[in-house]
Amino acid sequence: MNRAQKAAESIKKAKTIIIFHHVAPDGDGLGSSLALREMISQLDSVNKLDAVITGKIPDTYKFLPGIEYLKKSNDNSLHQSYDLAIALDCACKDRLGDAEELFNNARSTLNIDHHISDDGFADIDWIEPKASATGEILFKLIEPLGIKLTQNIAIGLYTAILTDTGGFKFENTKPETFKICAELLDAGADPVNIYNRCYESKPLAMVQLHARAIDNAIYLENNEIVYTKITRKLLEEINASDDHIDGITETLRQIDSVKIALVFKETTRGTTKVSFRSNGINVCEIASFFGGGGHKLASGCLLEKNIEGTVNDVITT
Amino acid sequence: MNRAQKAAESIKKAKTIIIFHHVAPDGDGLGSSLALREMISQLDSVNKLDAVITGKIPDTYKFLPGIEYLKKSNDNSLHQSYDLAIALDCACKDRLGDAEELFNNARSTLNIDHHISDDGFADIDWIEPKASATGEILFKLIEPLGIKLTQNIAIGLYTAILTDTGGFKFENTKPETFKICAELLDAGADPVNIYNRCYESKPLAMVQLHARAIDNAIYLENNEIVYTKITRKLLEEINASDDHIDGITETLRQIDSVKIALVFKETTRGTTKVSFRSNGINVCEIASFFGGGGHKLASGCLLEKNIEGTVNDVITT
Repeated sequence: MNRAQKAAESIKKAKTIIIFHHVAPDGDGLGSSLALREMISQLDSVNKLDAVITGKIPDTYKFLPGIEYLKKSNDNSLHQSYDLAIALDCACKDRLGDAEELFNNARSTLNIDHHISDDGFADIDWIEPKASATGEILFKLIEPLGIKLTQNIAIGLYTAILTDTGGFKFENTKPETFKICAELLDAGADPVNIYNRCYESKPLAMVQLHARAIDNAIYLENNEIVYTKITRKLLEEINASDDHIDGITETLRQIDSVKIALVFKETTRGTTKVSFRSNGINVCEIASFFGGGGHKLASGCLLEKNIEGTVNDVITT
Repeated sequence: MNRAQKAAESIKKAKTIIIFHHVAPDGDGLGSSLALREMISQLDSVNKLDAVITGKIPDTYKFLPGIEYLKKSNDNSLHQSYDLAIALDCACKDRLGDAEELFNNARSTLNIDHHISDDGFADIDWIEPKASATGEILFKLIEPLGIKLTQNIAIGLYTAILTDTGGFKFENTKPETFKICAELLDAGADPVNIYNRCYESKPLAMVQLHARAIDNAIYLENNEIVYTKITRKLLEEINASDDHIDGITETLRQIDSVKIALVFKETTRGTTKVSFRSNGINVCEIASFFGGGGHKLASGCLLEKNIEGTVNDVITT
């Protein structure tokens, strides 16, 4: 029996099932949860089926069909204990957040995930690190569950795959990914609408902050190095928040002459966070030198210094 | 005999073949040309095979395998007349530019295209308006030609499809598109590298111009309308050229509150071009009112007025 069959058997023999995904949910967590909920709802064997979210539903994903079924972990209608608890897209139990106790209370547990770091915390662990998304793994459940691929399932799984591959541009984009997407489109997932919902609506303050930060950027060494400063004053002026900063280093890195892009961010405590991105140079070594870390092409560090002092230290090094 | 077989037969019976794509070549034109060149090069029946480019090869596409084979239409090594001339991705003969005469000189002609407006100007016209790209149509030639899908062919066709679907986000993204992409990845096309080459390298002046234009933008009607002005002075200051303006209206339209985004561009003649983008409102009607046109969600017009006068006219209307 392969892993999909094994997982399907555990689902088919449970009368009560609860589904979880990780905290700070993204397109894969939410899309997978709602798709799996809809898959299981087709089974006559199940008489209590719940899906739990910890935290707020991000506005971006409110379009997902079935989003109204998600319950908070303290919802009164939840059972104390389920026959089966399923964790999706969670590399470890901690990532269940508030819902960890509910997961632990279940009579059996199933863990479906694509993170290579997944530590296998359930009775049945189905981990496929090569899958682009947990949504890609769930697609393989349709046949052994003996259910129909509906349009709503297709929308959930397509959203999962689209967002976790960054729009088919990350290394996890494989032939299998496209084969599955072809079937999801055949089943009614609309790639234009889903793309628009996931990517085409940005807060005004974010767009303004990016423009200002890039306009203020300073170029060094024949435009091979670029940096910009995000002060608390700038954030206040534009009415932007810290999460609006995401992506500025990426935009700077995409400039054709640039080899290293840096963003200096003043924290509320007056210290300074530095993000590094590169097109080849090992910036993790630089970040490590300042007590930080990360990946070769994307890393960061935090200095207990004000922003001007930090720029001075890092740029002259 | 279906259209793919008919096209393949015309290729197999020609001893000398010349391939063309449209002027101002894009990823579909170039990727398709080079992929088809490589396909035909596998046939023993062909003893002279050329591919022609009119104009300059855009830097972005210099990574395409076989790019070194492209010849200018006045290249001395070209024949005066070929058994077969193939036009790719050209909606009408005019789009062949300088190469139109060479096309006319051929003993037979084949036109492969996905533009719905293609007027069918060749002996054999193979037009598939539902195909996402000409590259998608060419994939169907592999079997009837009896050739092997090599990595170089896969890279050309994947580039064609990726760019003409805007990274799988346009309406032309169909189940068939993904099925073909799965096979192209299986044959060695690297989605990460091709994405990076097509989209991740932007001129410094372009990034700076976008930042400045967005930073200067003016918001009206509860941020539902946004506009920005691109003067010649601004372009000179940043050392940017007119083609660096592409995409600014799109970025403004992506702001969540925005319903209509406008960009006013001062031309070298002192007149003003206006681009409109919307998230639902028919901006073609507005552009038409000012003598322009386009699509419902994307249109434009040219006013014989200076930029301030044009802003005044259009915004107060």
